[in-house]
Amino acid sequence: MPAEIIDGKKISSEIKENLKGKLENLKKKGILPGLAAILVGDNPASQVYVNMKTKACEEVGIYSEVYRYPRELPESDLLKKIEELNQKKSIHGILVQFPTPEQISEEKVILAIDPKKDVDGFHPFNVGMMLAGKPTFLPCTPLGIQELLIRSGNDPSGKHVVILGRGSLVGRPLAPMLFQKAKGANATVTVCHTATKDLASLTLQADILIAAMGKAKFVTADMVKPGVVVIDVGTNRIEDPSTKSGYRLVGDVDFDSIKEVAGAITPVPGGVGPMTIAMLLSNTVKACEMQSRDRSTD
Amino acid sequence: MPAEIIDGKKISSEIKENLKGKLENLKKKGILPGLAAILVGDNPASQVYVNMKTKACEEVGIYSEVYRYPRELPESDLLKKIEELNQKKSIHGILVQFPTPEQISEEKVILAIDPKKDVDGFHPFNVGMMLAGKPTFLPCTPLGIQELLIRSGNDPSGKHVVILGRGSLVGRPLAPMLFQKAKGANATVTVCHTATKDLASLTLQADILIAAMGKAKFVTADMVKPGVVVIDVGTNRIEDPSTKSGYRLVGDVDFDSIKEVAGAITPVPGGVGPMTIAMLLSNTVKACEMQSRDRSTD
Repeated sequence: MPAEIIDGKKISSEIKENLKGKLENLKKKGILPGLAAILVGDNPASQVYVNMKTKACEEVGIYSEVYRYPRELPESDLLKKIEELNQKKSIHGILVQFPTPEQISEEKVILAIDPKKDVDGFHPFNVGMMLAGKPTFLPCTPLGIQELLIRSGNDPSGKHVVILGRGSLVGRPLAPMLFQKAKGANATVTVCHTATKDLASLTLQADILIAAMGKAKFVTADMVKPGVVVIDVGTNRIEDPSTKSGYRLVGDVDFDSIKEVAGAITPVPGGVGPMTIAMLLSNTVKACEMQSRDRSTD
Repeated sequence: MPAEIIDGKKISSEIKENLKGKLENLKKKGILPGLAAILVGDNPASQVYVNMKTKACEEVGIYSEVYRYPRELPESDLLKKIEELNQKKSIHGILVQFPTPEQISEEKVILAIDPKKDVDGFHPFNVGMMLAGKPTFLPCTPLGIQELLIRSGNDPSGKHVVILGRGSLVGRPLAPMLFQKAKGANATVTVCHTATKDLASLTLQADILIAAMGKAKFVTADMVKPGVVVIDVGTNRIEDPSTKSGYRLVGDVDFDSIKEVAGAITPVPGGVGPMTIAMLLSNTVKACEMQSRDRSTD
């Protein structure tokens, strides 16, 4: 029996519908969440991402501002802009689209954003709060993966989750998020990477397999056990002369063969991607609620 | 063949000898690292720990101050004292001995300590820097475990490390410390806990097993594979009428049976314990070096 498809578009739409309700309630109190997005340079993929994010804001009713700078922007100017947005009352969340040009240190940018407005969940303070299991902003992609699992009826509690990849955006934060003692977590977690020996012996043990190493179609059907739930975080471009653009996007798992073995699987595109944006919106609304509360108790 | 005993006392002595050399060099520049320890209440174990820590400071040549307060100390007074120590130039590291009495929030205490003086490595900012693989203070017990492995010739790189326990002091920070791509790390890591199913099937796969769940003699010989390296973080009191005190300390693993199967094992006491204190000293010297550098470039 072919695997159930975990539909990230549908689940993210449900989340956005819920957010619309929250936003209606905030509107009645005269509160409008605001997101500022900063884009430096003209990387085409970055432009697409920023457009998708601000379009999604508009769709649910979040106010957004976009700042586009030429690629030569001095680091100090960017840091000044961030400081200005940190102070700006109508802005509750700030995101700087990465990668930034060479002259700009991503670490300095992350540290410059007020942790209260860090809706990407990248600031070390928020990462540390996450690891300690304290309330904070969780990074959007790992949070989206966790929501996908819960809302598709695949709660990780008590399951063996095997994560492929230890990058700072997915594997590294996701591991402690899923092994902590909390609702929608509480999994036994194994983290594998390029130095892992006999990888297949570990992936074959996974009840839930999360592929996030950025290698096209790396995970094949012989590496998973029947019934496994597969979350594919990869988005790799491969050549495909049959398409208009000459390429198409594939994940880190070989979808066609694995869907015959797995119990459930996310497609690429249409799986994790839409969830990441939904969680950014969710974090922005959360940031606004927190900041409004802080102000009312000032 | 019985296991090699990994001697934490001996390895921690080597580390302390190295520190003495560093301290001599700092002395020539007129620099003396200083640690402030704060103890609230009269918990006997806490008193023992603080004494051990300050005695170790004295042994290597680190200046220390101890502040002892009655158990009724208001939280605000403690936070004021921490703020004063944050500003004090002769103090480079601050430690508050936990647990604190009920009226004092450990979270507030941790957040009050300047991350630059957080030699316990508990501040969320430092925890986040650690998870991001950036230079920071690493928490003393996980760091001690990593040093034990490296210095006993059991570098975790490429090995499968199974961690039992997900507490904030050991399992939670240790997992990302060991799976990151770095010297003395680079391991495949599995984190197990109370919700893990079929625990023995996972422990049997461990090349390195780290037991940190606080259950006396929980891990038995049938749960490990021959040649495994065992790091026992547990310190559990069990009754023993044959001793003067009526009790003795045992670890989380059944030492007597496992030492016949394992390749190497830490004893309790005398394994991880002395390493934790050595790493506190090491972090204090590091804090002093960093703060001296910051001042000289002011």
